[in-house]
Amino acid sequence: MLRRARPISKFVVRFNSTAARYFPSEPQAPIVSTESIPGPKSIAINNELGTVFDNGATYFVADYFKSLGNYISDADGNKLLDVYCQISSIALGYNNPKLIEAAKSDEMTSAIVNRPALACFPSTNYKDILQQGLLAAAPSGMNKIWTSLSGSDANETAYKAAFMYQHAKLRQTDGFTEEELTSVMNNETPGASDMVILSFDKGFHGRLFGSLSTTRSKAIHKLDIPAFPWPKAPFPQLKYPLEEFEAENREEEERCLYQFESIIENSPKQIAAIIVEPVQSEGGDNHATSFFFQGLRDLTKRHGILMIVDEVQTGVGATGKFWAHEHWNLTTPPDMVTFSKKFQAAGFYFSNPELQPKQPYRQFNTWCGDPSKAILAKAIYKEIAASNLVQSTAQVGDYLFKGLQTIVAKSSGKFTNLRGENFGTFIAWDCVDADFRNKVLLACRSRGVNMGGCGDVSIRLRPTLLFEKKHADIFLNVLEDAVKSL
Amino acid sequence: MLRRARPISKFVVRFNSTAARYFPSEPQAPIVSTESIPGPKSIAINNELGTVFDNGATYFVADYFKSLGNYISDADGNKLLDVYCQISSIALGYNNPKLIEAAKSDEMTSAIVNRPALACFPSTNYKDILQQGLLAAAPSGMNKIWTSLSGSDANETAYKAAFMYQHAKLRQTDGFTEEELTSVMNNETPGASDMVILSFDKGFHGRLFGSLSTTRSKAIHKLDIPAFPWPKAPFPQLKYPLEEFEAENREEEERCLYQFESIIENSPKQIAAIIVEPVQSEGGDNHATSFFFQGLRDLTKRHGILMIVDEVQTGVGATGKFWAHEHWNLTTPPDMVTFSKKFQAAGFYFSNPELQPKQPYRQFNTWCGDPSKAILAKAIYKEIAASNLVQSTAQVGDYLFKGLQTIVAKSSGKFTNLRGENFGTFIAWDCVDADFRNKVLLACRSRGVNMGGCGDVSIRLRPTLLFEKKHADIFLNVLEDAVKSL
Repeated sequence: MLRRARPISKFVVRFNSTAARYFPSEPQAPIVSTESIPGPKSIAINNELGTVFDNGATYFVADYFKSLGNYISDADGNKLLDVYCQISSIALGYNNPKLIEAAKSDEMTSAIVNRPALACFPSTNYKDILQQGLLAAAPSGMNKIWTSLSGSDANETAYKAAFMYQHAKLRQTDGFTEEELTSVMNNETPGASDMVILSFDKGFHGRLFGSLSTTRSKAIHKLDIPAFPWPKAPFPQLKYPLEEFEAENREEEERCLYQFESIIENSPKQIAAIIVEPVQSEGGDNHATSFFFQGLRDLTKRHGILMIVDEVQTGVGATGKFWAHEHWNLTTPPDMVTFSKKFQAAGFYFSNPELQPKQPYRQFNTWCGDPSKAILAKAIYKEIAASNLVQSTAQVGDYLFKGLQTIVAKSSGKFTNLRGENFGTFIAWDCVDADFRNKVLLACRSRGVNMGGCGDVSIRLRPTLLFEKKHADIFLNVLEDAVKSL
Repeated sequence: MLRRARPISKFVVRFNSTAARYFPSEPQAPIVSTESIPGPKSIAINNELGTVFDNGATYFVADYFKSLGNYISDADGNKLLDVYCQISSIALGYNNPKLIEAAKSDEMTSAIVNRPALACFPSTNYKDILQQGLLAAAPSGMNKIWTSLSGSDANETAYKAAFMYQHAKLRQTDGFTEEELTSVMNNETPGASDMVILSFDKGFHGRLFGSLSTTRSKAIHKLDIPAFPWPKAPFPQLKYPLEEFEAENREEEERCLYQFESIIENSPKQIAAIIVEPVQSEGGDNHATSFFFQGLRDLTKRHGILMIVDEVQTGVGATGKFWAHEHWNLTTPPDMVTFSKKFQAAGFYFSNPELQPKQPYRQFNTWCGDPSKAILAKAIYKEIAASNLVQSTAQVGDYLFKGLQTIVAKSSGKFTNLRGENFGTFIAWDCVDADFRNKVLLACRSRGVNMGGCGDVSIRLRPTLLFEKKHADIFLNVLEDAVKSL
């Protein structure tokens, strides 16, 4: 039997829709014409790809030329409403005309064909590109930037900045001892640091050796890879709905803060920095309140530890603020904020100039970022600002959340712990078990909605910033229909 | 006094010159119109950049719009013959029309604006892009590829592949024990590996935490950063000219191989893999002979250790072979070969399918490479093949080497250890001390040649693959003139 999803939304929003302005031909509803997804063409192409490339995690093969707006097209011509968006990475929809314009610009062409070693031969226009894009979007008070190539790279260069900063503070001189200079060549102290980065249980910060040592999401991400003996602290496990469990949740956060301080005080090694996500995304979309994060900020300040906020997944508008940590109203900003994904460009923001080592060639590598990605980030930022997409995402998020409340309420306990209220479209909920979760994901996909899981039993929503009420209606209808079918 | 370099080459090669075909307007000689380089505009722009970005290593600010072919333009309008090329990364000259064509193609535009999470939603054309570019260029017998984002990323994902492979071999089952699953979440064995990667003294393999643990080039690259307790082995220190020191050099390589085997046999931890550069580039352009590399291959085979060849800097034609390790005629190919720089795309080649973990989400991250870079690599490869640029680079390299032999011979011992004979344009030599080396670099720059150092006292040449006899003549004249002036 062919499943063919029909337009479901009750009315078509043609006006006041930024999506409609960008994508006049965006599908009005998902189109599924194969028995299942991946369809036969996806499977055939993926099998071919598998002869040369690791394809064990493929959902389906996508046709990006035919994808548009909130809809991803697959190799078989199916068009799916995409609420996963390349693991939270498509800010402005597929084939956004403003980004195509940026991609075809002479500025972009030059950046692609003349890729510079930025720290040795920066381009005449790099400062302007940064200033009009990544820096215009910087969190309040953070006027400096380090650019890199991925979320892992962003976090690891932030760690390097933290280690160099803490050692410089201890050393109080610009020189190095002979013992440091020789021992470091053997990977030994005192030249090599024995300081540590503290991360949180269930946190995810990347997959290279330093970042993976701070990642605590799932065993499969870490098995068989050497890791630094760095500590982890508990992250609050909140109960939902929040308004029902206010006292218990406060107690849980106090418990975690207490343990956090106890780990700091008893750590055999100096903790150079902590890293924390505003929402632990890969680890299951675990939230905490401003109380917890302000507590972390107070304790790190008190103990001379740097606070790195990992906004790789939460950054760039999806939470209804440009940066998720703006929800906290911290009394002092974090020391570094890392970014990637929706900005395509990666790196970290900071304000303290001492986080930049005094000597050259310490925070250094061949590329030090990629101007072509910074140019794209500039175009992304300009459109987000011009079309008020953070505000509209906050609004559609509220609408979506209410719709999901209804579905969860009717689910007879199969869906629980709906979270992300007042957090834009950065919404998730739990399923009764992993098997049911996976069935829901597949049932939605076969009805034309591409959705992703996280943690052990959670479903997370990561639509574009052009996901509107009409898309929310389609999504909610498909989800409800999928659940009924199971 | 204004220095103004004049055309020096005795005749202008207009025909049989690929460079002239690509760049009919390429300068005939360097043009320097400022007192020194960086000139006033470079300095002003760099100071501005420094308010937001680490600019401590800037040589000068480049105007990539005005750069052409082998000539890099700076912010002041100077045009320098570039034999450093963004630390060995510009394969086909600045603003190469074939690359501009690729950059402006619809395929590129789609890759830029719809950047996929490749391991989950690969594009319909990714296999073709790989097949026509990166895989067409693959070393003999290496039919599989992992794509990543930088040389560091390439090496670290190769290390991950090595660790997973060696543990899988030991484990002989696809499952994991409860103890492995829990210990790894605390970064502890047995879930986290205590195996090691062995690298060589003076080797450079990147600057993230795993790759930096194998980097042994300079203390400043490593100070204050935690490192894994991984071993290093000596790398031969050859004497030049090679033909005069054949017996001593053989003895030195035998000594290094003996110590290498002794380290393997006495290592308290299992060595998962070794990593070695065909020419230790950052560490001073240190060469070894085929005898040494064949010895490494034999010993790694005998001891069940993987051999990773780091071709990040040596790869893609500059040595007069497409891959430098092809000079060795190994009896069996390396297990993995990593690449980046001149290919823009990064990653590693391999042939053994068991280097790909059986379970998904182990070798995994959001991007898993970047199709836009793979498209550029395809265009680069096609042009290299179509215009026989590896062969022409081998020829011009021989010409350049002979010219340098003359200059070194006349240098009264200020230049020594000329190396890279029969190694294309991948040529280097030593200066009497670091101070003299730096003066030579500056004197050449002020005469319109942009050149780079490496190691403690070395100068390395890393021109494009379109560096021809006419460029070599200009370079040799400038170098001779610069040395005379000191």
